Amino acid sequence: MTTRFFIGTAQVDSLPANNRGLAYGDGLFETMRMHRGDVAWWDAHWSRLMHGAARLRLRLPDASFVRDQASQLFANEEGVLKLVVTRAGGRGYAPSPDSEPNWLLSLHPLPSKPREGGLALRWCDLRLAIQPALAGIKHCNRLEQVLARAEWQQDTIDDGLMRDHEGFVVCATSANLFVLREGGWTTPLVDRCGVAGVCRAWCMAELATTEARLNPEQVESSDAIFLCNAVRGILPVERLDGREWSPHSQVAALQARLAQVHPAFASHREVS
Amino acid sequence: MTTRFFIGTAQVDSLPANNRGLAYGDGLFETMRMHRGDVAWWDAHWSRLMHGAARLRLRLPDASFVRDQASQLFANEEGVLKLVVTRAGGRGYAPSPDSEPNWLLSLHPLPSKPREGGLALRWCDLRLAIQPALAGIKHCNRLEQVLARAEWQQDTIDDGLMRDHEGFVVCATSANLFVLREGGWTTPLVDRCGVAGVCRAWCMAELATTEARLNPEQVESSDAIFLCNAVRGILPVERLDGREWSPHSQVAALQARLAQVHPAFASHREVS
Repeated sequence: MTTRFFIGTAQVDSLPANNRGLAYGDGLFETMRMHRGDVAWWDAHWSRLMHGAARLRLRLPDASFVRDQASQLFANEEGVLKLVVTRAGGRGYAPSPDSEPNWLLSLHPLPSKPREGGLALRWCDLRLAIQPALAGIKHCNRLEQVLARAEWQQDTIDDGLMRDHEGFVVCATSANLFVLREGGWTTPLVDRCGVAGVCRAWCMAELATTEARLNPEQVESSDAIFLCNAVRGILPVERLDGREWSPHSQVAALQARLAQVHPAFASHREVS
Repeated sequence: MTTRFFIGTAQVDSLPANNRGLAYGDGLFETMRMHRGDVAWWDAHWSRLMHGAARLRLRLPDASFVRDQASQLFANEEGVLKLVVTRAGGRGYAPSPDSEPNWLLSLHPLPSKPREGGLALRWCDLRLAIQPALAGIKHCNRLEQVLARAEWQQDTIDDGLMRDHEGFVVCATSANLFVLREGGWTTPLVDRCGVAGVCRAWCMAELATTEARLNPEQVESSDAIFLCNAVRGILPVERLDGREWSPHSQVAALQARLAQVHPAFASHREVS
């Protein structure tokens, strides 16, 4: 892992001790796919970051400065680019609105290729709390995801589906969910919890998807499901606890389409 | 502010770039009152930390090592001692259970003395999400408190009362709440959200308090209310939006009792 820290436009050795990312998770992040020095969906990532920053009233660094830094630091590299923007400031919850953003860029190895034939999922026990004020944005308060991901250690399970406190299905711990039912695609609403994924938005446009609340039975009785995120692209699902699905041509077609648009994801196609 | 960082028992210049406190708020903290080098309620703070660590499966540093470090670093000092313990590890939500804790100790100035005559409060708009898995413990996912505290800038308001998603009153942004009704003291349950404060536990024992869900009308129609936390002790409340209370002898007696047990809080008595 290579990491660079910044305060505004100044590169620093480490973030100040009083930065509120460390204290309160008072920040936002983006996890992006870097391919030959280019960032897939950069504009969509930055746009979500701006939306989150408006919600948290968090000052962002300059977009072109961040992108230039990423290109200079990680030119021609392959991997996962992570941007974390936190609020500067002191002890106590009151944020100081004019503080220079404390931020970092880091490059991480690509995750391993998805399981041949499709992912194996489980249902998570931990329920997502309903909090419209934080729903949709990629903020740094992620203990729910940490606890949910800690529910299993076996590497026969790739991810877990999470429900909200009312029992509706929302997402996987680190991906969005798409479900094929009655001839149409549905993805859970992320208006009360969950993250409005960048790859989710791309898939929604490609598949003319409906956003809705889905219960577990609706997911289990669907004709196909897949997960997606901006690092791993489209991830077909083969099994969810006892339920199994065969590869579906619509998912394979979507993978092919993504590989066309973003060559970074060409190697991640499992079904052809 | 003076800060010292540690990995296990080794003092370091800064926490590793991949520490999960910064990435996900994957950690716990305690905010303590340091008075002449002694920490008020040390055992209670450590006990809550252990409870939180069990819940998050987070490894803690050795208690006596932490206390020795605090005493050596901040001997004879007056202020707020903050301990933050975060999980080490990398990108991705899966925690590695055996990682050495990344932690820090910092000393901060005492907050200003509470308002003469009692605090002025408001109702916060932001509702606390219901999440039993994280309720009661002092974890580092505090965006709800940051957003709630950002609702006002006027220094005529000292703190805000927060309700949960069902409308029940839970706490202030940085303190617990006690309410005198029908001759008895009640404090909101913290089983679904909120923090089980160290000073709250002390007050509960002193006042033979009932834990219950309270609605805003029950708070507004009470005979007296006060806030409390481990840094500022007992804080009488004079006003909550339009509602006003006169100083109450039971609150003054509790302040006097706290000052007896913990001399750190002697200077914070407002009513005598």
